Amino acid sequence: MITDDTICALATPPGVSGLAVIRLSGNDAFLIADKCFRGKKALADVASHTIHYGKFYDNDELLDTVTSSVFRAPHSYTGENTVEIGCHGGFVVSDEVTTALLRQGARYADPGEFTRRAFINGKLDLTQVEAVADLIHSVSSRGSHVAARQLIGGFAKTIQILRQSLLSVCALLELELDFSGEDIEFVDKNHLLSMLDEIILTCHQLSDTTASTILRNGFQIGLAGYPNAGKSTLFNSLLNKHRSIVSPIAGTTRDYIQDIITLNGIAITIYDTAGLRNDSKDSIELEGIALTHSLLDSSNLIFVINDLSLGEHYSHSLLNSLQDLYPHKKICLVHNKVDIATSPTSNTTNDVFYVSALEGNGIASIKQYIEYIATSSTERVSDVLLNQRHASLLSDISIYLSTARLSLEKRMSNEFVALDIRHAISKLGEITGEVLNEEILNTIFSQFCIGK
Amino acid sequence: MITDDTICALATPPGVSGLAVIRLSGNDAFLIADKCFRGKKALADVASHTIHYGKFYDNDELLDTVTSSVFRAPHSYTGENTVEIGCHGGFVVSDEVTTALLRQGARYADPGEFTRRAFINGKLDLTQVEAVADLIHSVSSRGSHVAARQLIGGFAKTIQILRQSLLSVCALLELELDFSGEDIEFVDKNHLLSMLDEIILTCHQLSDTTASTILRNGFQIGLAGYPNAGKSTLFNSLLNKHRSIVSPIAGTTRDYIQDIITLNGIAITIYDTAGLRNDSKDSIELEGIALTHSLLDSSNLIFVINDLSLGEHYSHSLLNSLQDLYPHKKICLVHNKVDIATSPTSNTTNDVFYVSALEGNGIASIKQYIEYIATSSTERVSDVLLNQRHASLLSDISIYLSTARLSLEKRMSNEFVALDIRHAISKLGEITGEVLNEEILNTIFSQFCIGK
Repeated sequence: MITDDTICALATPPGVSGLAVIRLSGNDAFLIADKCFRGKKALADVASHTIHYGKFYDNDELLDTVTSSVFRAPHSYTGENTVEIGCHGGFVVSDEVTTALLRQGARYADPGEFTRRAFINGKLDLTQVEAVADLIHSVSSRGSHVAARQLIGGFAKTIQILRQSLLSVCALLELELDFSGEDIEFVDKNHLLSMLDEIILTCHQLSDTTASTILRNGFQIGLAGYPNAGKSTLFNSLLNKHRSIVSPIAGTTRDYIQDIITLNGIAITIYDTAGLRNDSKDSIELEGIALTHSLLDSSNLIFVINDLSLGEHYSHSLLNSLQDLYPHKKICLVHNKVDIATSPTSNTTNDVFYVSALEGNGIASIKQYIEYIATSSTERVSDVLLNQRHASLLSDISIYLSTARLSLEKRMSNEFVALDIRHAISKLGEITGEVLNEEILNTIFSQFCIGK
Repeated sequence: MITDDTICALATPPGVSGLAVIRLSGNDAFLIADKCFRGKKALADVASHTIHYGKFYDNDELLDTVTSSVFRAPHSYTGENTVEIGCHGGFVVSDEVTTALLRQGARYADPGEFTRRAFINGKLDLTQVEAVADLIHSVSSRGSHVAARQLIGGFAKTIQILRQSLLSVCALLELELDFSGEDIEFVDKNHLLSMLDEIILTCHQLSDTTASTILRNGFQIGLAGYPNAGKSTLFNSLLNKHRSIVSPIAGTTRDYIQDIITLNGIAITIYDTAGLRNDSKDSIELEGIALTHSLLDSSNLIFVINDLSLGEHYSHSLLNSLQDLYPHKKICLVHNKVDIATSPTSNTTNDVFYVSALEGNGIASIKQYIEYIATSSTERVSDVLLNQRHASLLSDISIYLSTARLSLEKRMSNEFVALDIRHAISKLGEITGEVLNEEILNTIFSQFCIGK
């Protein structure tokens, strides 16, 4: 990968606005910018971290009056010489400023290339890079806060401490090998066993990404029920709006509809699904039902909506079949239409709610319950938003260390123990990016937007 | 209007991106920013036009790592103390940073309020303010370039020179009044007459907004024709894409479709209209036809598409009726379907084209012609994008000066002459905003987006 050319791209979203910022980074950033920017001084001659007002030209055509912010290597986001041109927003000006810079020798940046250079130049480790992506794409404040803490390096520090202790253990194990004839023990094997247990436990705890996924993508709730049970009305009540088409004809919600509310800083995605009915002959509706099952499968919480006016037990077979299908999911029963039902209503509990979605009774309790469950499912996430990459590396590490532990217990040669620990160390290095895996890098940076 | 509070808003468009910038301006900008920003130094203590890296907190919650750009009054866009917080893009972080600043005492800015403060503090005159709006909303590079030149004050300078010369003439005319008994002439009346003629001519020339409107909104082209003449196919050929539904059933394009190409830096908006047919009984289509006429009415150029396979004169009655309706518009005849027509084809001229929209023959000549007409219609616009406000003030000025000219010719008292010149001077002042009109100001700034 060539990194000695100078890249540029719009760093702010395209759109009509007061301000747009074009980022230019690389060896020739000042040289290129100075061909377009005319201020009191050439940017090549000014101090780092200073802002300069001037006119921006494409050859002799005045494009805009701009500010140029100057960052000298290594004190910039990328670690390279960087100029940020602040011009007027809108679709034309920022495009022309970018084009002018390209014409003077800059290259249009690939997605994530600024951050990739920051990584290569040691300004960010890989967990920080991932935190940047999570911050940019965050959908709720709680997730965003965790990403911000990961950005300042908390996770990397944890990993580095683990890595450091395994490295020193490994060195000692290998030292013992050199003195194998003399039967000298540099490592207290019992201490090492308990240390490995501790790290394996940490890996196990860290490798559950459920809570991080909720903070990243939102807590998903599926509304299930027979047609006409009032799912769409409940959906609207929960969201305080009128969105689904609510009709008394069974099977109205043919496709699913989703929307988001935020409770306690967590995005809650609610899916209003198609009515679940086995005897439907309508093929579109049947397709809707298949979709419903796939949505329920990925939900963190399921509400089965029962039409109480048809009796308290009307939806029990549905509830039972869902409990069989998803034995590990929290599934609650919501008795709807208490306003027109003649059945006796009991008290709302954590599993059973009595509501009138139409009149709004009982909706507040459901929301409180959702907030409680969503909050407690994410409580243990503090400084890291785990992703599948972390989880899979942590699982590998835990396997290597378990094998090392076994070899240790069986009093096998240090050689075997050290080999597996070395593998684990290498995997730990992959988490922070100290050990490079070009393919993984490409995957991570391709998910970035251009200009970051 | 209160201007001593501190305002803040997102200055970049909302959206997923590398960077978002939140602008904070007012007396307490540093005080408020320092409650959230923790860097090496307090922002209150740093030099103007410097950039500082640090962490941004909402009370004790870390929101992001940011850069703070500091501008000290009067050396900022608004002329006030200003901090620009550069944080990570996306929907959550910028919103939380803004909320944190509001919590510490900032107020959410009204649309255009930053620029309004810049105007009030004398950083921009009103023609520059309008140039900012035109730059942000520009749809083509030519218009954007003119707005950039207006932004650096070309138009205001012209107006101020006119105003200055009228002011000195006025002073001399009034001085003569003081010496009226003594019959002393301070002003050479013939010189004054020719000066007024010159200014009136300038006002007349300036008050034609056609060219500026083309640069601002685009050059509009309407495609008219009987159903099935191939308008949609021509539309697609001109745009190099497949957008309208093209069907052999007459009356397919029920609504109009528009799209834009850029030729020589000018946005060209092409309207593919409903077929013009008088005998349609379909009410939706009739509505479409009414719309077609209103689109043709606002077009700068009309192409009548004739199906040549039905004969060279098949659309002549349509062409004639449009020429009657729009006697001052340029209307060209496009003979389409040369590939299947048996009629003899003549040479393409500036008024008549022979093409096959389907096979692409002759499309290049039409494009060249459009580029030529659009360019020549905007040629005389150089440093000002005129708008209706300017045009109406310039028309008032020209009326006042014509009246003054008449009074002068009739040898009426200087009093009358001076009075009308004073009115003209005041109107000139309204153009640049030296003479304030609160209602006009409100109109101008309400068209701005928030954050500018």
